Amino acid sequence: MLSSTIVQKFGGSSVADAEKFRLCAQHALAARRRGQRVVIVVSAMGDATDDLIELAEKAMPQPDRRELDQLLATGEQVSIAMMALTLKGLGVPAISLTGQQAAIRTDNVHGRASIQSIDSARLNTLLDAGQVAVVAGFQGVSPSGDVTTLGRGGSDTTAVALAATLGGACEIYKDVDGVYTADPRLVPAAKRLPRVRYDEMLEAAALGSQVLHPRAVEMAKRFGVPVRVVHSHLHDPEDLAGGTWIVGETDPMEARAVANVVLKKNVGRISLRGVNNIAGVQARVFGPLAERSLPIDDIIQEDDGPGTINLTWTMDKKDLLEAAPIVQNVAGAVRAQSLRIDGVEVGSGLVTLSAVGAGMRTTPGVAAKMFEALAQEGIRVENITTSEIRISCVLAESDGARAAKCVHAAFGLG
Amino acid sequence: MLSSTIVQKFGGSSVADAEKFRLCAQHALAARRRGQRVVIVVSAMGDATDDLIELAEKAMPQPDRRELDQLLATGEQVSIAMMALTLKGLGVPAISLTGQQAAIRTDNVHGRASIQSIDSARLNTLLDAGQVAVVAGFQGVSPSGDVTTLGRGGSDTTAVALAATLGGACEIYKDVDGVYTADPRLVPAAKRLPRVRYDEMLEAAALGSQVLHPRAVEMAKRFGVPVRVVHSHLHDPEDLAGGTWIVGETDPMEARAVANVVLKKNVGRISLRGVNNIAGVQARVFGPLAERSLPIDDIIQEDDGPGTINLTWTMDKKDLLEAAPIVQNVAGAVRAQSLRIDGVEVGSGLVTLSAVGAGMRTTPGVAAKMFEALAQEGIRVENITTSEIRISCVLAESDGARAAKCVHAAFGLG
Repeated sequence: MLSSTIVQKFGGSSVADAEKFRLCAQHALAARRRGQRVVIVVSAMGDATDDLIELAEKAMPQPDRRELDQLLATGEQVSIAMMALTLKGLGVPAISLTGQQAAIRTDNVHGRASIQSIDSARLNTLLDAGQVAVVAGFQGVSPSGDVTTLGRGGSDTTAVALAATLGGACEIYKDVDGVYTADPRLVPAAKRLPRVRYDEMLEAAALGSQVLHPRAVEMAKRFGVPVRVVHSHLHDPEDLAGGTWIVGETDPMEARAVANVVLKKNVGRISLRGVNNIAGVQARVFGPLAERSLPIDDIIQEDDGPGTINLTWTMDKKDLLEAAPIVQNVAGAVRAQSLRIDGVEVGSGLVTLSAVGAGMRTTPGVAAKMFEALAQEGIRVENITTSEIRISCVLAESDGARAAKCVHAAFGLG
Repeated sequence: MLSSTIVQKFGGSSVADAEKFRLCAQHALAARRRGQRVVIVVSAMGDATDDLIELAEKAMPQPDRRELDQLLATGEQVSIAMMALTLKGLGVPAISLTGQQAAIRTDNVHGRASIQSIDSARLNTLLDAGQVAVVAGFQGVSPSGDVTTLGRGGSDTTAVALAATLGGACEIYKDVDGVYTADPRLVPAAKRLPRVRYDEMLEAAALGSQVLHPRAVEMAKRFGVPVRVVHSHLHDPEDLAGGTWIVGETDPMEARAVANVVLKKNVGRISLRGVNNIAGVQARVFGPLAERSLPIDDIIQEDDGPGTINLTWTMDKKDLLEAAPIVQNVAGAVRAQSLRIDGVEVGSGLVTLSAVGAGMRTTPGVAAKMFEALAQEGIRVENITTSEIRISCVLAESDGARAAKCVHAAFGLG
C-alpha cells in the first residue's frame, strides 16, 4: 500500500547522460521500496538549454519568447522520455508527462511564467496504479494552449508545486550535497548545514545562492512542503539523514545569529540622482520595470537635500540592458513635467555579500561585526541593505571572494 | 487578399542548420508575395531523429513506443520553433504549432499512428490573419492526449493532410529536384519526369522510392491534392514549373508503358512450405502480423502438390526480427491441430526491382521485355509479382544495381 508521496527533482547535471539517468533512477527505486508514491521532475540534460538558446539566437538575435519557450520545452521533454525509458528498462512501471500532460497551468508570461494551478487528477490515477510519474520541470501550458517556461531554476518550482498539490515531501537532487555556510568553491572552510529555515533559504536563494530557486523556497514556505537538498550520485538512496532539510522551524539551539554567507555575482545597479520626492515617483520608476517582469533586488532611497532623493537599486547585470532604456524614458517623462531627475547612473562589476541567519533577530551587533571584518580587510562597502534576518553589502567584484572568506570566519562558521 | 493556400514541407536535410532554415524561408516569402496563405511543415533537423533513437536505446534497448514518441516528437518541435524564429527574424509574422496545437488527431498506435482528423479552426484563424503557420510534421495527439508519431516519412503525410483539410496544394521540398525514371545515384542515365500520376507514385513509393511516403501519396490521391516535389535550395522560389507534379491524370501522350524503375533494398522474405490449404489459413498467418502493424509487401501463393501450398511474402528486413517468431508460433499452433506446415524459411539479402507505368495496362509484352533484359545479364529472378501497372522481381542484393541499369535501358528511359 502506497503510504506517502515523494517528489524527486533531478537537475541538468544529474541527468547529463544515459548512465546518470540510471543512477538517478536508484533513488526512485529506493522510495518505491519504502512504499512511497514517486513523482520525478527532471531538467534538460546537461547544457541542452544553453545549446537551444544558442541555436535560437542564430535564427533570431533576440528570440521571440513564445517561440523560445516552444523550443526550450523540448529539453525537458527529452529528459522525461529518457527517465521513463530508463525506469521501464529497469522493470519499473513509469510514464512521462509534459507540463501540459501533467496539467500544470500557468499564465502567459512567456519565459517567466507563473504556475496558476495543477490538476492532479491524472497524476493521482497514475500514482495510485503504482506508476512512477516523470514530469517535465520548468514548463507549463498557457490559457491559449501554448507552451510556457517558468524561467531558469523553474524545475525546482515545478517539483515543490507538485509536492504541495499531491501532499508530499520534495527532494532536490543536485551536484552539491546540501546547503553550506558558504559556497565551498569560494570558502574552503564552509560546512554543510543539516537543517535550515525557509526564511534563511529564501534570503539565501534571493541573494543568488545557486542551491534552490527562490520561487521554489517561497512556495515550499507557503504550503509547508518539507524540502531536502541532497547529492544525486554521491548520496546513498537508503540514507534519509543526508543532505540539508529545509523546514519551517529549526531547533532554537540551531538558531545561530548567522547561518550562512552568500555572495551574489553579476550584480547591476541603477541610481537616479536628485529626484523630486513627489508622491508616487517610486511607482512611476518601478511600475514599468515590473510590467516587463524585470526582477529588482534591493532598493535604497536616501535624501539628497531638501525635497529631493537619490533612488538606487540592484538587479541582475543581464537585465540592465533591458532596464536602462526604460528608466531613461521614465526620467525623460518626469523631466518633461518640469520635475527633477538630475541623472541616471548604470553600474555593473558589482557583487552583493550577505550574511543570513534567523537568530539575527535576537542577536545584537551582527551588522557591526560584519562591517568590522570588511574594514579589517580594507574592503570598501558601496551600499548596505538589511532585512530582519540578513545584512547585505554591495562590493566591487574584485573584493567578493576575499570578503566572503573574512565574513564567514568572523561569524565562526568555519 | 489571400487567394489560395499552399502547404510547403521541408525534410530534415533541408533544415539541417540555421542557414538552411533561411533558405527554406525564401519559398514561404515567395508564396506570400503571390498572395497565398502559407503553411510550413518541417521535419526534425538533419539526423536529429536518428540521434534521438540512439539515445533512447541507451536507456532501453527496445524502447517503449509511447515514450519513444514523446522523445522523437521533440525533433520536429525544435524545427518548428526554429522556422518560426527564422521567419520572424526576416520580419514575417509566423507562429509554430506542435501536432497537438494544430489539432492533428490520430489513433493511439504509437510509432505508426494514423491521422483521424484535423480541426482547422485555429489554423484558418492564423492564416486569415496573415500569419505563416509552421506545423510540426510526423506527429499528432492521441485520444488520451499523448504524443503520437506517424512513422518514418510521416511529415509528407502531415503536409498532404493539411493541404487536403485547408483546400490547398502541397509542395514537398527535398534534396532531389523531382521524380526520376530511376534513382540517379543508381542509374546515371535517369531523367526527371515533369508529371507522374498518383497511381505511379503510389506503386513507386510503396516499392521503396524515397521520394514520397506512400501514405502521403495515398492521401493525395484520395483527396485530389496536387503535390509538387522540388529541390529545397537549388530551386528558384519564383519558378512554378520546376520539379515534378504528382497529379490525377497525365497527358495520354505521356502514358508510356513504363514511367520509372524502382529498386527496393533491404527486402526480407518469409516462406511457409507445405501448408494445408484449409479455408482461412492465410488469415491465420497474416492476422497476427497485421495486429502488430507489420507491413507486408508482396504475397505469393503457389501449389505444392495436392491440397497443400507454399505461402511466400516479402517485407522490410528490419521487421523480420519481430515477424519471424510470430510466424513460428502460428506454424506451431497449426501443427498442434494436426494440420501441416512443413517448414518456415526466413531470408534476407534480397532486393525488389520494379517497373512502373500507367501505360502498362494498354501495352502488351512489358513483362517479357523486363525478363529478357534480366536474362541477358544472367540475373536470376527469385520471385515475380505484378499489379495492373507494375512488374516486380525479387533478386539477390548483389544483382540490384546492374538489374536496375539494364531494365531502365531496356524500356528506353535513358
